[in-house]
Amino acid sequence: MTRIACRQLAPELGAVDANVRMTTAAIRESVAAGAQLVVLPELIVSGYMFTSADEARTAAITPEHPVFAAWSDAVRGVGGVVVGGFAELGDDGLVYNSAAVVDGSGVLAVYRKVHLWDKEKLSFTPGFVPPPVVETPVGRLGILVCFDLEFPEMTRSLALRGAELLVVPTNWPLETVPEGERVPEVTVGMAAAYSNRVGIACCDRTGIERGQDWNGASCIINEQGWVIANVDADGVATADLDLQLSRDKSLSAMVDFFGDRRPELYGAVTAPKA
Amino acid sequence: MTRIACRQLAPELGAVDANVRMTTAAIRESVAAGAQLVVLPELIVSGYMFTSADEARTAAITPEHPVFAAWSDAVRGVGGVVVGGFAELGDDGLVYNSAAVVDGSGVLAVYRKVHLWDKEKLSFTPGFVPPPVVETPVGRLGILVCFDLEFPEMTRSLALRGAELLVVPTNWPLETVPEGERVPEVTVGMAAAYSNRVGIACCDRTGIERGQDWNGASCIINEQGWVIANVDADGVATADLDLQLSRDKSLSAMVDFFGDRRPELYGAVTAPKA
Repeated sequence: MTRIACRQLAPELGAVDANVRMTTAAIRESVAAGAQLVVLPELIVSGYMFTSADEARTAAITPEHPVFAAWSDAVRGVGGVVVGGFAELGDDGLVYNSAAVVDGSGVLAVYRKVHLWDKEKLSFTPGFVPPPVVETPVGRLGILVCFDLEFPEMTRSLALRGAELLVVPTNWPLETVPEGERVPEVTVGMAAAYSNRVGIACCDRTGIERGQDWNGASCIINEQGWVIANVDADGVATADLDLQLSRDKSLSAMVDFFGDRRPELYGAVTAPKA
Repeated sequence: MTRIACRQLAPELGAVDANVRMTTAAIRESVAAGAQLVVLPELIVSGYMFTSADEARTAAITPEHPVFAAWSDAVRGVGGVVVGGFAELGDDGLVYNSAAVVDGSGVLAVYRKVHLWDKEKLSFTPGFVPPPVVETPVGRLGILVCFDLEFPEMTRSLALRGAELLVVPTNWPLETVPEGERVPEVTVGMAAAYSNRVGIACCDRTGIERGQDWNGASCIINEQGWVIANVDADGVATADLDLQLSRDKSLSAMVDFFGDRRPELYGAVTAPKA
Protein backbone atom coordinates (compact mmCIF):
# COMPACT_ATOMS: atom_id res chain seq x y z
CA MET A 1 0.00 0.00 0.00
CA THR A 2 1.33 3.42 -0.95
CA ARG A 3 0.18 6.63 0.70
CA ILE A 4 -0.12 9.31 -1.96
CA ALA A 5 -0.45 13.03 -1.28
CA CYS A 6 -1.25 15.51 -4.04
CA ARG A 7 -0.35 19.00 -2.83
CA GLN A 8 -2.48 21.56 -4.62
CA LEU A 9 -0.20 24.57 -4.09
CA ALA A 10 0.01 28.10 -5.50
CA PRO A 11 3.43 29.04 -6.88
CA GLU A 12 4.66 32.61 -7.06
CA LEU A 13 5.27 33.46 -10.71
CA GLY A 14 8.97 33.60 -11.47
CA ALA A 15 10.00 33.41 -7.79
CA VAL A 16 12.00 30.19 -7.89
CA ASP A 17 13.56 30.50 -4.44
CA ALA A 18 10.22 31.11 -2.76
CA ASN A 19 8.69 28.18 -4.61
CA VAL A 20 11.57 25.92 -3.56
CA ARG A 21 10.94 26.78 0.08
CA MET A 22 7.17 26.34 -0.20
CA THR A 23 7.32 23.01 -2.00
CA THR A 24 9.99 21.59 0.28
CA ALA A 25 7.98 22.54 3.35
CA ALA A 26 4.88 20.92 1.83
CA ILE A 27 6.74 17.71 1.05
CA ARG A 28 8.14 17.56 4.58
CA GLU A 29 4.67 18.09 6.00
CA SER A 30 3.20 15.28 3.87
CA VAL A 31 6.05 12.92 4.70
CA ALA A 32 5.43 13.63 8.39
CA ALA A 33 1.79 12.68 7.75
CA GLY A 34 2.85 9.34 6.29
CA ALA A 35 3.02 10.05 2.57
CA GLN A 36 5.43 8.00 0.48
CA LEU A 37 4.60 9.66 -2.83
CA VAL A 38 4.13 13.42 -2.96
CA VAL A 39 2.78 14.89 -6.18
CA LEU A 40 3.16 18.60 -6.92
CA PRO A 41 1.53 20.69 -9.68
CA GLU A 42 2.85 21.39 -13.15
CA LEU A 43 5.43 24.21 -13.24
CA ILE A 44 5.25 24.56 -9.46
CA VAL A 45 8.86 25.78 -9.27
CA SER A 46 8.36 28.55 -11.84
CA GLY A 47 4.69 29.48 -12.07
CA TYR A 48 2.71 29.19 -15.28
CA MET A 49 1.47 32.39 -16.92
CA PHE A 50 4.55 33.34 -18.90
CA THR A 51 3.93 35.16 -22.16
CA SER A 52 7.15 34.33 -23.99
CA ALA A 53 10.07 31.93 -24.00
CA ASP A 54 12.31 34.77 -22.87
CA GLU A 55 10.18 35.32 -19.81
CA ALA A 56 9.91 31.59 -19.06
CA ARG A 57 13.69 31.33 -19.36
CA THR A 58 14.12 33.70 -16.42
CA ALA A 59 12.59 30.99 -14.20
CA ALA A 60 14.03 27.97 -15.99
CA ILE A 61 16.40 25.62 -14.19
CA THR A 62 18.33 22.46 -14.95
CA PRO A 63 17.97 19.10 -13.17
CA GLU A 64 21.10 20.08 -11.20
CA HIS A 65 19.26 22.92 -9.45
CA PRO A 66 19.24 22.69 -5.62
CA VAL A 67 15.46 22.36 -5.53
CA PHE A 68 15.75 18.70 -6.44
CA ALA A 69 18.31 18.06 -3.71
CA ALA A 70 15.92 19.71 -1.27
CA TRP A 71 13.04 17.50 -2.42
CA SER A 72 15.33 14.47 -2.25
CA ASP A 73 16.38 15.30 1.31
CA ALA A 74 12.74 15.63 2.30
CA VAL A 75 11.81 12.07 1.28
CA ARG A 76 15.08 10.22 1.89
CA GLY A 77 14.24 9.10 5.40
CA VAL A 78 11.07 7.29 4.37
CA GLY A 79 12.12 5.91 1.01
CA GLY A 80 9.69 8.29 -0.62
CA VAL A 81 9.26 9.87 -4.04
CA VAL A 82 8.34 13.34 -5.30
CA VAL A 83 6.97 14.20 -8.74
CA GLY A 84 6.64 17.86 -9.62
CA GLY A 85 6.81 20.31 -12.47
CA PHE A 86 9.42 22.90 -13.39
CA ALA A 87 10.49 25.06 -16.31
CA GLU A 88 13.54 23.28 -17.66
CA LEU A 89 16.42 25.00 -19.37
CA GLY A 90 17.73 22.43 -21.83
CA ASP A 91 21.33 21.93 -22.93
CA ASP A 92 20.00 23.20 -26.24
CA GLY A 93 19.07 26.55 -24.68
CA LEU A 94 15.37 25.86 -25.19
CA VAL A 95 12.81 25.92 -22.39
CA TYR A 96 10.64 22.88 -21.67
CA ASN A 97 7.59 22.32 -19.48
CA SER A 98 9.03 19.40 -17.51
CA ALA A 99 8.34 17.13 -14.58
CA ALA A 100 11.01 15.62 -12.34
CA VAL A 101 10.83 12.31 -10.50
CA VAL A 102 12.96 12.48 -7.37
CA ASP A 103 13.72 9.98 -4.64
CA GLY A 104 16.25 9.92 -1.79
CA SER A 105 19.05 9.28 -4.27
CA GLY A 106 18.27 12.33 -6.39
CA VAL A 107 16.61 12.92 -9.76
CA LEU A 108 15.50 9.60 -11.27
CA ALA A 109 13.95 10.99 -14.45
CA VAL A 110 12.88 14.17 -16.19
CA TYR A 111 9.98 14.23 -18.64
CA ARG A 112 9.39 17.09 -21.06
CA LYS A 113 5.68 17.66 -21.76
CA VAL A 114 4.82 16.49 -25.24
CA HIS A 115 1.38 18.09 -25.71
CA LEU A 116 1.59 21.79 -24.93
CA TRP A 117 -1.70 23.49 -24.15
CA ASP A 118 -2.72 26.66 -25.96
CA LYS A 119 -0.45 29.65 -25.25
CA GLU A 120 2.16 27.45 -23.60
CA LYS A 121 3.31 27.10 -27.18
CA LEU A 122 4.55 30.69 -26.97
CA SER A 123 6.74 29.96 -23.96
CA PHE A 124 7.85 26.34 -24.18
CA THR A 125 9.25 23.85 -26.66
CA PRO A 126 7.38 20.53 -26.84
CA GLY A 127 9.21 17.41 -25.72
CA PHE A 128 10.22 14.94 -28.39
CA VAL A 129 10.61 11.78 -26.28
CA PRO A 130 7.75 9.54 -25.06
CA PRO A 131 6.89 9.79 -21.37
CA PRO A 132 8.93 7.57 -19.05
CA VAL A 133 7.95 4.66 -16.88
CA VAL A 134 10.21 5.13 -13.87
CA GLU A 135 11.20 2.42 -11.41
CA THR A 136 10.95 4.07 -8.00
CA PRO A 137 10.92 2.92 -4.39
CA VAL A 138 7.11 3.13 -4.41
CA GLY A 139 6.53 1.36 -7.74
CA ARG A 140 6.64 1.89 -11.48
CA LEU A 141 5.40 5.42 -12.19
CA GLY A 142 4.25 6.64 -15.59
CA ILE A 143 4.66 10.40 -15.91
CA LEU A 144 2.45 12.82 -17.85
CA VAL A 145 1.90 16.56 -17.60
CA CYS A 146 -1.58 18.10 -17.79
CA PHE A 147 -2.90 18.10 -21.40
CA ASP A 148 -0.99 14.87 -22.10
CA LEU A 149 -3.67 13.07 -20.06
CA GLU A 150 -6.32 13.94 -22.65
CA PHE A 151 -4.59 11.90 -25.36
CA PRO A 152 -5.69 8.31 -24.81
CA GLU A 153 -2.59 7.06 -26.60
CA MET A 154 -0.48 8.49 -23.77
CA THR A 155 -2.27 6.79 -20.91
CA ARG A 156 -2.59 3.56 -22.88
CA SER A 157 1.07 3.42 -23.85
CA LEU A 158 2.27 4.01 -20.29
CA ALA A 159 -0.01 1.28 -18.96
CA LEU A 160 1.10 -1.12 -21.71
CA ARG A 161 4.70 -0.42 -20.71
CA GLY A 162 3.94 -1.52 -17.17
CA ALA A 163 3.23 1.69 -15.28
CA GLU A 164 1.47 0.90 -11.99
CA LEU A 165 0.41 4.49 -11.36
CA LEU A 166 0.14 7.46 -13.70
CA VAL A 167 1.35 10.63 -12.02
CA VAL A 168 0.11 13.85 -13.57
CA PRO A 169 1.27 17.29 -12.41
CA THR A 170 -1.24 19.68 -13.94
CA ASN A 171 -2.49 23.27 -14.14
CA TRP A 172 -6.12 22.99 -15.23
CA PRO A 173 -7.50 26.40 -16.25
CA LEU A 174 -10.88 27.13 -14.66
CA GLU A 175 -13.81 25.82 -16.66
CA THR A 176 -17.56 26.18 -16.34
CA VAL A 177 -19.25 22.78 -16.33
CA PRO A 178 -22.90 21.74 -16.12
CA GLU A 179 -24.40 21.49 -12.63
CA GLY A 180 -23.27 18.35 -10.83
CA GLU A 181 -20.61 17.40 -13.36
CA ARG A 182 -16.90 16.89 -12.82
CA VAL A 183 -14.45 18.84 -14.95
CA PRO A 184 -13.73 16.91 -18.15
CA GLU A 185 -10.10 16.24 -17.22
CA VAL A 186 -11.20 14.16 -14.24
CA THR A 187 -13.72 12.23 -16.35
CA VAL A 188 -10.98 11.55 -18.87
CA GLY A 189 -8.74 10.35 -16.04
CA MET A 190 -11.44 8.04 -14.68
CA ALA A 191 -11.96 6.52 -18.12
CA ALA A 192 -8.23 6.04 -18.66
CA ALA A 193 -7.88 4.42 -15.23
CA TYR A 194 -10.82 2.11 -15.93
CA SER A 195 -9.83 1.03 -19.44
CA ASN A 196 -6.19 0.53 -18.47
CA ARG A 197 -6.78 -0.79 -14.95
CA VAL A 198 -4.21 1.66 -13.63
CA GLY A 199 -4.33 4.22 -10.82
CA ILE A 200 -3.90 7.92 -11.62
CA ALA A 201 -2.84 10.76 -9.32
CA CYS A 202 -3.47 14.28 -10.66
CA CYS A 203 -2.13 17.32 -8.83
CA ASP A 204 -3.73 20.58 -9.93
CA ARG A 205 -2.76 24.06 -8.66
CA THR A 206 -4.48 27.00 -7.03
CA GLY A 207 -3.77 30.74 -6.70
CA ILE A 208 -4.95 33.25 -9.32
CA GLU A 209 -2.00 34.21 -11.55
CA ARG A 210 -2.21 37.13 -13.96
CA GLY A 211 -5.98 36.83 -13.79
CA GLN A 212 -6.07 33.07 -14.48
CA ASP A 213 -7.88 30.83 -12.00
CA TRP A 214 -7.79 27.01 -11.91
CA ASN A 215 -10.13 24.08 -11.46
CA GLY A 216 -8.41 22.99 -8.27
CA ALA A 217 -9.56 19.48 -9.09
CA SER A 218 -6.64 17.39 -7.82
CA CYS A 219 -7.70 13.81 -7.34
CA ILE A 220 -6.53 10.26 -6.88
CA ILE A 221 -8.28 7.63 -9.02
CA ASN A 222 -7.97 3.91 -8.35
CA GLU A 223 -7.34 1.19 -10.91
CA GLN A 224 -11.09 0.58 -11.24
CA GLY A 225 -11.65 4.17 -12.35
CA TRP A 226 -13.20 5.58 -9.17
CA VAL A 227 -12.11 8.85 -7.59
CA ILE A 228 -10.95 7.85 -4.10
CA ALA A 229 -9.65 11.24 -3.00
CA ASN A 230 -10.30 14.90 -3.70
CA VAL A 231 -8.61 17.84 -2.01
CA ASP A 232 -9.39 18.61 1.61
CA ALA A 233 -9.69 22.10 3.09
CA ASP A 234 -5.88 22.35 3.15
CA GLY A 235 -5.60 21.58 -0.57
CA VAL A 236 -4.28 18.07 -0.10
CA ALA A 237 -5.70 14.94 -1.74
CA THR A 238 -4.56 11.86 0.17
CA ALA A 239 -5.21 8.18 -0.43
CA ASP A 240 -3.70 4.80 0.28
CA LEU A 241 -3.52 2.80 -2.92
CA ASP A 242 -2.18 -0.68 -3.59
CA LEU A 243 -0.27 -0.12 -6.82
CA GLN A 244 0.16 -3.85 -7.35
CA LEU A 245 -3.54 -4.06 -8.20
CA SER A 246 -2.68 -2.28 -11.45
CA ARG A 247 -0.78 -5.35 -12.58
CA ASP A 248 -3.97 -7.35 -13.07
CA LYS A 249 -5.85 -6.31 -16.20
CA SER A 250 -8.54 -8.97 -15.93
CA LEU A 251 -12.13 -8.65 -14.75
CA SER A 252 -12.98 -12.33 -14.98
CA ALA A 253 -11.52 -15.56 -16.32
CA MET A 254 -12.65 -14.46 -19.80
CA VAL A 255 -12.22 -10.68 -19.70
CA ASP A 256 -8.80 -9.03 -19.82
CA PHE A 257 -8.52 -5.38 -20.81
CA PHE A 258 -5.09 -5.94 -22.29
CA GLY A 259 -5.37 -9.55 -23.43
CA ASP A 260 -8.58 -8.70 -25.29
CA ARG A 261 -6.94 -5.93 -27.30
CA ARG A 262 -6.79 -6.32 -31.09
CA PRO A 263 -3.81 -4.11 -31.96
CA GLU A 264 -3.69 -5.46 -35.51
CA LEU A 265 -6.95 -3.54 -36.06
CA TYR A 266 -5.86 -0.22 -34.50
CA GLY A 267 -3.66 1.07 -37.29
CA ALA A 268 -5.38 4.40 -37.71
CA VAL A 269 -4.53 5.45 -34.16
CA THR A 270 -0.91 6.01 -35.06
CA ALA A 271 -1.61 7.43 -38.52
CA PRO A 272 0.47 10.49 -39.37
CA LYS A 273 -1.00 13.86 -38.62
CA ALA A 274 -3.31 15.21 -41.30
CA MET B 1 -29.43 18.88 -36.79
CA THR B 2 -30.20 15.16 -36.45
CA ARG B 3 -32.84 13.77 -34.13
CA ILE B 4 -31.51 10.60 -32.55
CA ALA B 5 -33.63 8.05 -30.68
CA CYS B 6 -32.04 5.19 -28.74
CA ARG B 7 -34.69 2.53 -28.11
CA GLN B 8 -33.84 0.58 -24.98
CA LEU B 9 -35.86 -2.53 -25.77
CA ALA B 10 -36.07 -6.06 -24.38
CA PRO B 11 -35.69 -8.83 -26.94
CA GLU B 12 -37.18 -12.27 -26.52
CA LEU B 13 -34.32 -14.79 -26.48
CA GLY B 14 -34.23 -16.76 -29.71
CA ALA B 15 -37.58 -15.44 -30.94
CA VAL B 16 -36.45 -13.72 -34.11
CA ASP B 17 -39.91 -13.12 -35.59
CA ALA B 18 -41.22 -11.52 -32.42
CA ASN B 19 -38.13 -9.32 -32.20
CA VAL B 20 -38.55 -8.24 -35.82
CA ARG B 21 -42.09 -7.10 -35.10
CA MET B 22 -41.14 -5.32 -31.88
CA THR B 23 -38.16 -3.48 -33.34
CA THR B 24 -40.00 -2.46 -36.48
CA ALA B 25 -42.87 -1.06 -34.43
CA ALA B 26 -40.41 0.86 -32.25
CA ILE B 27 -38.65 2.33 -35.27
CA ARG B 28 -41.96 3.41 -36.80
CA GLU B 29 -42.97 5.02 -33.53
CA SER B 30 -39.69 6.95 -33.27
CA VAL B 31 -39.87 8.04 -36.91
CA ALA B 32 -43.38 9.32 -36.27
CA ALA B 33 -41.91 11.31 -33.37
CA GLY B 34 -39.39 12.92 -35.68
CA ALA B 35 -36.35 10.67 -35.31
CA GLN B 36 -33.96 10.41 -38.26
CA LEU B 37 -31.54 8.01 -36.60
CA VAL B 38 -32.90 5.12 -34.54
CA VAL B 39 -30.41 3.11 -32.50
CA LEU B 40 -31.33 -0.35 -31.20
CA PRO B 41 -29.48 -2.53 -28.69
CA GLU B 42 -26.82 -5.14 -29.36
CA LEU B 43 -28.27 -8.51 -30.47
CA ILE B 44 -31.79 -7.08 -30.37
CA VAL B 45 -32.97 -9.48 -33.10
CA SER B 46 -31.72 -12.59 -31.31
CA GLY B 47 -31.39 -11.92 -27.59
CA TYR B 48 -28.10 -12.26 -25.74
CA MET B 49 -27.75 -15.03 -23.17
CA PHE B 50 -26.78 -17.91 -25.41
CA THR B 51 -24.51 -20.52 -23.90
CA SER B 52 -22.97 -21.97 -27.04
CA ALA B 53 -22.38 -21.25 -30.70
CA ASP B 54 -24.88 -23.96 -31.57
CA GLU B 55 -27.56 -22.22 -29.58
CA ALA B 56 -26.68 -18.80 -30.99
CA ARG B 57 -26.82 -20.26 -34.50
CA THR B 58 -30.50 -21.08 -34.03
CA ALA B 59 -31.19 -17.34 -33.95
CA ALA B 60 -28.52 -16.27 -36.44
CA ILE B 61 -29.51 -14.58 -39.68
CA THR B 62 -27.81 -13.15 -42.75
CA PRO B 63 -27.97 -9.53 -43.97
CA GLU B 64 -30.57 -10.79 -46.49
CA HIS B 65 -33.06 -11.54 -43.71
CA PRO B 66 -36.41 -9.69 -44.01
CA VAL B 67 -35.85 -7.82 -40.75
CA PHE B 68 -33.57 -5.41 -42.53
CA ALA B 69 -36.12 -4.78 -45.28
CA ALA B 70 -38.66 -4.06 -42.55
CA TRP B 71 -36.32 -1.59 -40.84
CA SER B 72 -35.53 -0.03 -44.23
CA ASP B 73 -39.23 0.40 -45.01
CA ALA B 74 -39.76 2.07 -41.65
CA VAL B 75 -37.24 4.88 -42.28
CA ARG B 76 -37.49 5.29 -46.05
CA GLY B 77 -40.08 8.04 -45.97
CA VAL B 78 -37.96 10.36 -43.84
CA GLY B 79 -34.51 9.58 -45.20
CA GLY B 80 -33.67 7.97 -41.89
CA VAL B 81 -31.19 5.40 -40.64
CA VAL B 82 -31.34 2.43 -38.23
CA VAL B 83 -28.42 0.85 -36.42
CA GLY B 84 -29.11 -2.35 -34.50
CA GLY B 85 -27.55 -5.61 -33.44
CA PHE B 86 -28.16 -9.16 -34.62
CA ALA B 87 -26.56 -12.61 -34.49
CA GLU B 88 -25.02 -13.00 -37.92
CA LEU B 89 -24.59 -16.31 -39.69
CA GLY B 90 -21.51 -15.84 -41.83
CA ASP B 91 -20.80 -17.38 -45.21
CA ASP B 92 -18.16 -19.30 -43.28
CA GLY B 93 -20.81 -20.91 -41.09
CA LEU B 94 -19.55 -19.05 -38.02
CA VAL B 95 -21.75 -16.86 -35.84
CA TYR B 96 -20.85 -13.22 -35.25
CA ASN B 97 -22.15 -10.56 -32.86
CA SER B 98 -22.93 -7.98 -35.53
CA ALA B 99 -24.54 -4.60 -36.07
CA ALA B 100 -26.32 -3.51 -39.24
CA VAL B 101 -26.58 0.01 -40.62
CA VAL B 102 -29.77 0.34 -42.63
CA ASP B 103 -31.32 3.20 -44.57
CA GLY B 104 -34.21 3.44 -47.02
CA SER B 105 -32.11 1.74 -49.69
CA GLY B 106 -31.33 -1.32 -47.56
CA VAL B 107 -28.30 -2.55 -45.61
CA LEU B 108 -25.43 -0.08 -45.96
CA ALA B 109 -22.93 -1.93 -43.77
CA VAL B 110 -22.52 -4.79 -41.33
CA TYR B 111 -19.93 -4.69 -38.55
CA ARG B 112 -18.83 -7.80 -36.65
CA LYS B 113 -17.93 -7.03 -33.03
CA VAL B 114 -14.19 -7.22 -32.56
CA HIS B 115 -13.94 -7.31 -28.75
CA LEU B 116 -16.19 -10.02 -27.38
CA TRP B 117 -17.14 -9.69 -23.72
CA ASP B 118 -16.66 -12.59 -21.34
CA LYS B 119 -18.86 -15.62 -22.13
CA GLU B 120 -19.81 -14.21 -25.54
CA LYS B 121 -16.60 -15.96 -26.51
CA LEU B 122 -18.43 -19.26 -26.10
CA SER B 123 -21.17 -18.28 -28.56
CA PHE B 124 -19.61 -15.92 -31.09
CA THR B 125 -16.56 -15.58 -33.30
CA PRO B 126 -14.77 -12.22 -33.03
CA GLY B 127 -14.75 -9.99 -36.08
CA PHE B 128 -11.47 -9.58 -37.93
CA VAL B 129 -12.12 -6.29 -39.75
CA PRO B 130 -11.91 -2.79 -38.21
CA PRO B 131 -15.21 -1.05 -37.54
CA PRO B 132 -16.68 0.90 -40.45
CA VAL B 133 -17.30 4.59 -40.96
CA VAL B 134 -20.51 4.58 -42.96
CA GLU B 135 -21.76 7.41 -45.17
CA THR B 136 -25.47 7.64 -44.43
CA PRO B 137 -28.26 10.14 -45.10
CA VAL B 138 -27.79 11.53 -41.56
CA GLY B 139 -23.99 11.75 -41.62
CA ARG B 140 -20.84 9.68 -41.28
CA LEU B 141 -21.48 7.05 -38.61
CA GLY B 142 -18.76 5.07 -36.86
CA ILE B 143 -20.07 1.74 -35.57
CA LEU B 144 -19.01 -0.11 -32.42
CA VAL B 145 -20.69 -2.80 -30.34
CA CYS B 146 -20.67 -2.68 -26.53
CA PHE B 147 -17.24 -3.69 -25.13
CA ASP B 148 -15.54 -2.18 -28.20
CA LEU B 149 -16.27 1.24 -26.68
CA GLU B 150 -13.92 0.53 -23.77
CA PHE B 151 -10.89 0.28 -26.05
CA PRO B 152 -9.74 3.85 -26.64
CA GLU B 153 -8.06 2.80 -29.88
CA MET B 154 -11.49 2.01 -31.32
CA THR B 155 -13.11 5.36 -30.60
CA ARG B 156 -9.96 7.22 -31.59
CA SER B 157 -9.54 5.40 -34.88
CA LEU B 158 -13.16 5.97 -35.92
CA ALA B 159 -12.90 9.68 -35.13
CA LEU B 160 -9.60 9.97 -37.00
CA ARG B 161 -11.28 8.36 -39.98
CA GLY B 162 -13.94 11.07 -39.99
CA ALA B 163 -16.86 9.60 -38.06
CA GLU B 164 -19.24 12.37 -37.02
CA LEU B 165 -21.14 10.20 -34.56
CA LEU B 166 -20.23 6.92 -32.90
CA VAL B 167 -23.22 4.60 -32.72
CA VAL B 168 -22.96 1.85 -30.13
CA PRO B 169 -25.58 -0.87 -29.75
CA THR B 170 -24.85 -2.42 -26.37
CA ASN B 171 -25.97 -4.89 -23.69
CA TRP B 172 -24.35 -3.63 -20.47
CA PRO B 173 -24.66 -6.24 -17.70
CA LEU B 174 -25.92 -4.74 -14.44
CA GLU B 175 -23.17 -3.34 -12.24
CA THR B 176 -23.09 -1.94 -8.73
CA VAL B 177 -21.45 1.48 -8.68
CA PRO B 178 -20.69 3.93 -5.85
CA GLU B 179 -23.54 6.25 -4.83
CA GLY B 180 -24.01 9.08 -7.30
CA GLU B 181 -21.72 7.63 -9.97
CA ARG B 182 -22.52 6.76 -13.55
CA VAL B 183 -21.75 3.27 -14.79
CA PRO B 184 -18.16 3.12 -16.07
CA GLU B 185 -19.22 2.57 -19.68
CA VAL B 186 -20.89 5.99 -19.77
CA THR B 187 -17.85 7.66 -18.20
CA VAL B 188 -15.69 5.98 -20.83
CA GLY B 189 -18.06 7.26 -23.52
CA MET B 190 -17.96 10.80 -22.16
CA ALA B 191 -14.16 10.76 -22.16
CA ALA B 192 -14.00 9.37 -25.69
CA ALA B 193 -16.46 12.01 -26.89
CA TYR B 194 -14.47 14.77 -25.20
CA SER B 195 -11.01 13.71 -26.36
CA ASN B 196 -12.19 13.03 -29.91
CA ARG B 197 -14.75 15.85 -30.15
CA VAL B 198 -17.29 13.39 -31.49
CA GLY B 199 -20.85 12.60 -30.44
CA ILE B 200 -21.72 9.11 -29.18
CA ALA B 201 -25.11 7.38 -29.05
CA CYS B 202 -25.26 4.25 -26.88
CA CYS B 203 -28.35 2.04 -26.89
CA ASP B 204 -28.49 -0.40 -23.97
CA ARG B 205 -31.19 -3.02 -23.42
CA THR B 206 -33.64 -3.98 -20.69
CA GLY B 207 -35.56 -7.14 -19.74
CA ILE B 208 -34.06 -9.79 -17.45
CA GLU B 209 -32.85 -12.72 -19.55
CA ARG B 210 -31.85 -16.05 -17.98
CA GLY B 211 -31.36 -14.17 -14.71
CA GLN B 212 -29.19 -11.42 -16.22
CA ASP B 213 -30.23 -7.81 -15.70
CA TRP B 214 -28.76 -4.75 -17.43
CA ASN B 215 -27.64 -1.23 -16.61
CA GLY B 216 -30.30 0.31 -18.82
CA ALA B 217 -27.95 3.25 -19.26
CA SER B 218 -28.65 4.27 -22.85
CA CYS B 219 -27.46 7.80 -23.47
CA ILE B 220 -26.57 10.36 -26.07
CA ILE B 221 -23.33 12.27 -25.52
CA ASN B 222 -22.45 15.42 -27.43
CA GLU B 223 -19.12 16.23 -29.03
CA GLN B 224 -18.04 18.13 -25.91
CA GLY B 225 -18.42 15.00 -23.79
CA TRP B 226 -21.66 15.88 -21.96
CA VAL B 227 -24.58 13.49 -21.63
CA ILE B 228 -27.47 15.31 -23.30
CA ALA B 229 -30.06 12.52 -23.08
CA ASN B 230 -30.83 9.56 -20.87
CA VAL B 231 -33.80 7.23 -21.23
CA ASP B 232 -37.25 8.49 -20.40
CA ALA B 233 -39.99 6.45 -18.72
CA ASP B 234 -40.67 4.71 -22.03
CA GLY B 235 -37.06 3.60 -22.40
CA VAL B 236 -36.23 6.09 -25.14
CA ALA B 237 -33.26 8.48 -25.11
CA THR B 238 -33.88 11.30 -27.56
CA ALA B 239 -31.72 14.26 -28.55
CA ASP B 240 -31.18 16.66 -31.39
CA LEU B 241 -27.49 16.81 -32.23
CA ASP B 242 -25.66 18.77 -34.91
CA LEU B 243 -23.24 16.14 -36.20
CA GLN B 244 -21.28 18.71 -38.17
CA LEU B 245 -19.93 20.06 -34.88
CA SER B 246 -17.84 16.88 -34.69
CA ARG B 247 -15.83 18.07 -37.66
CA ASP B 248 -14.12 20.79 -35.63
CA LYS B 249 -11.46 19.36 -33.30
CA SER B 250 -10.24 22.73 -32.04
CA LEU B 251 -10.93 24.47 -28.74
CA SER B 252 -9.09 27.68 -29.55
CA ALA B 253 -6.75 29.10 -32.17
CA MET B 254 -3.91 27.18 -30.50
CA VAL B 255 -5.62 24.00 -29.26
CA ASP B 256 -6.68 21.22 -31.60
CA PHE B 257 -7.32 17.75 -30.22
CA PHE B 258 -6.23 16.15 -33.47
CA GLY B 259 -3.67 18.66 -34.72
CA ASP B 260 -1.92 18.51 -31.35
CA ARG B 261 -1.47 14.74 -31.51
CA ARG B 262 2.08 13.35 -31.61
CA PRO B 263 1.54 9.98 -33.29
CA GLU B 264 5.27 9.48 -33.78
CA LEU B 265 5.45 9.04 -29.99
CA TYR B 266 2.52 6.61 -29.61
CA GLY B 267 4.21 3.47 -30.90
CA ALA B 268 3.43 1.30 -27.90
CA VAL B 269 -0.32 1.66 -28.42
CA THR B 270 -0.26 -0.66 -31.39
CA ALA B 271 2.38 -3.00 -29.98
CA PRO B 272 1.61 -6.67 -30.50
CA LYS B 273 -0.24 -8.48 -27.78
CA ALA B 274 1.96 -9.75 -24.98
